[in-house]
Amino acid sequence: MPSKVRIALDAMGGDVGAPVVIPGAAISLGRHPETEFLLVGDRARIEPELDRHPKLKAASRIVHTDVAVSMEDKPSQALRRGRKTSSMWLAIDAVKKGEADVAISAGNTGALMAMARFHLRTLPGIDRPAIAGIWPTMRGESVVLDLGATIGGDAHHVVSLAVMGAAMASVLFSKPRPTVGLLNIGTEEIKGHEEIREAGEILRAMNLPGLDYIGFVEGDGIGKGLADVIVTEGFSGNIALKAAEGTARQMAELLRNEMQRSWMSKLGYLFARGAFQALRNKMDPNKSNGGMFLGLRGVVVKSHGGINAEGFAYAIDVGYEMVKFDLLNKINQMLNRDGGGLSSVQPAPEDVS
Amino acid sequence: MPSKVRIALDAMGGDVGAPVVIPGAAISLGRHPETEFLLVGDRARIEPELDRHPKLKAASRIVHTDVAVSMEDKPSQALRRGRKTSSMWLAIDAVKKGEADVAISAGNTGALMAMARFHLRTLPGIDRPAIAGIWPTMRGESVVLDLGATIGGDAHHVVSLAVMGAAMASVLFSKPRPTVGLLNIGTEEIKGHEEIREAGEILRAMNLPGLDYIGFVEGDGIGKGLADVIVTEGFSGNIALKAAEGTARQMAELLRNEMQRSWMSKLGYLFARGAFQALRNKMDPNKSNGGMFLGLRGVVVKSHGGINAEGFAYAIDVGYEMVKFDLLNKINQMLNRDGGGLSSVQPAPEDVS
Repeated sequence: MPSKVRIALDAMGGDVGAPVVIPGAAISLGRHPETEFLLVGDRARIEPELDRHPKLKAASRIVHTDVAVSMEDKPSQALRRGRKTSSMWLAIDAVKKGEADVAISAGNTGALMAMARFHLRTLPGIDRPAIAGIWPTMRGESVVLDLGATIGGDAHHVVSLAVMGAAMASVLFSKPRPTVGLLNIGTEEIKGHEEIREAGEILRAMNLPGLDYIGFVEGDGIGKGLADVIVTEGFSGNIALKAAEGTARQMAELLRNEMQRSWMSKLGYLFARGAFQALRNKMDPNKSNGGMFLGLRGVVVKSHGGINAEGFAYAIDVGYEMVKFDLLNKINQMLNRDGGGLSSVQPAPEDVS
Repeated sequence: MPSKVRIALDAMGGDVGAPVVIPGAAISLGRHPETEFLLVGDRARIEPELDRHPKLKAASRIVHTDVAVSMEDKPSQALRRGRKTSSMWLAIDAVKKGEADVAISAGNTGALMAMARFHLRTLPGIDRPAIAGIWPTMRGESVVLDLGATIGGDAHHVVSLAVMGAAMASVLFSKPRPTVGLLNIGTEEIKGHEEIREAGEILRAMNLPGLDYIGFVEGDGIGKGLADVIVTEGFSGNIALKAAEGTARQMAELLRNEMQRSWMSKLGYLFARGAFQALRNKMDPNKSNGGMFLGLRGVVVKSHGGINAEGFAYAIDVGYEMVKFDLLNKINQMLNRDGGGLSSVQPAPEDVS
């Protein structure tokens, strides 16, 4: 466990850049004083922000560049234009060179994934990376992956998602053996895609010490908190996340509109303000901010682009915990110890040895 | 347009059966007096319920059977055991024989789809049926399909979903040319599965008179009401629906818990009760009850199993409207006029004529 956690921040990422990134870093530093920051971006925009946070200034070093990856760039464009020069690339580069333990950006997701994958490469045994998110549930929080890094994939890809998600959940929730469910459209064994059924059989057969496979979970089981880790390929994971976010926003807006409609309900709102605030806190997307890139030889966290400083601080917190509690080694251990078997264990072995 | 709408009800379907189905029919009859009912199920359980609703009794005929499909039966079991004898089969059989215009059941979804497909067969030009639902949005309601009848499928399957969904939306929302979006994980053309991109190109190339194709829609676009019809294959459609339902339930429960926590918030609840009721009404799953089976040579509606009489009445209403406004002919017309081109129009034609 390293004594200091060294965090590289893309200070030009997101809708706002430095005015959100720097105050966010200051908030997170307040919670974890044993942090050092590498602030990558335009010095002229970083310094005025930094002057308002002397403690952060003392714990930070600026890496200057004025090249930013735009939110509109396609991944290939970003790689072509921003490689070796952009704030996003240089933050990842600091991880690659061992100058930082984690890189965090609120920039263009596709570009960040493309650069991270290109520069850091995937872990041994992992073909395709994943994005994992933290989902608020009735029981607390769950890790959900893949949220859109990789579309499709065979049973072994799904199994590797389960292993990586379990490693992340064990760090986040301090559970040595988190429960893992596979997202499916029915809980009966006969339903769903072939690769999900096969992944379920592999997980059951392997009976890994680092995760407790509980079977299939339907879409409404995520919010119920039926498992610490919910695994699905990137297309359906992204659809589930966005559909849930959309519904939460829709209900909040409907409630707000209804509360404005009469003096009675306005009065009610005044009395119940604390309850509404508590609901907002529990469903606050800022608080579950921080998409982990999993499967790379380095820790990279993606923050929402349209987040405020408090939300960005949560993304930093996630990165901090992943480093402090050694996520990469945990994943590697599981992949090597348990995952050494990933390719050898088959649901129906046919090879003659 | 038929003068009477003849509705066959599976009076043994759902968690409760006749005690929900019969009062539900009575409610719907109150809204549409020009309805006739065929009540299929155990006469001994139907008659006592019917005695409480003399108007319904006058508009109904009982088809007796004491064979029910269980909620736990797999589709193949249900077909084997319940064919020609079960209330579910006989309700579908009434449609097949032309004795009813629509069959409605709150029973086992997989069994209902298997029986309907087996007995009614699919429409010409349709290989695989779909389930369409009505989704409450910020703008009103949208039709979303497929909610889980068919997993996967090629671009032409997705296009046929768009055509059938548009026909349903034109009936439900009285719009001659409803807007149609394809569910995807990014709005840029480069993202998503190959078959979704190809379906988008076909829809754009065909420029059908019965639907207005607007492009890709992400998961949170459903609740925003970005299109009258949202199209996706059955796996992701089911995941989206369940994730959204789960989130709505989760928020409602959180809010209820928070409102109980202090006397201030309890008082607030009393004042704002009307607002909460309005929210509940808008997000009430009972009100969007009624999954349409599309692509069959007959109209079949699936009600939720755990619904109350009011909710079952909504499912009947949906069936009623589909018959009254001639959904089947609309779909057939679109498939023949427009869809005659479904197989001939290709995004990149290569045939030499």
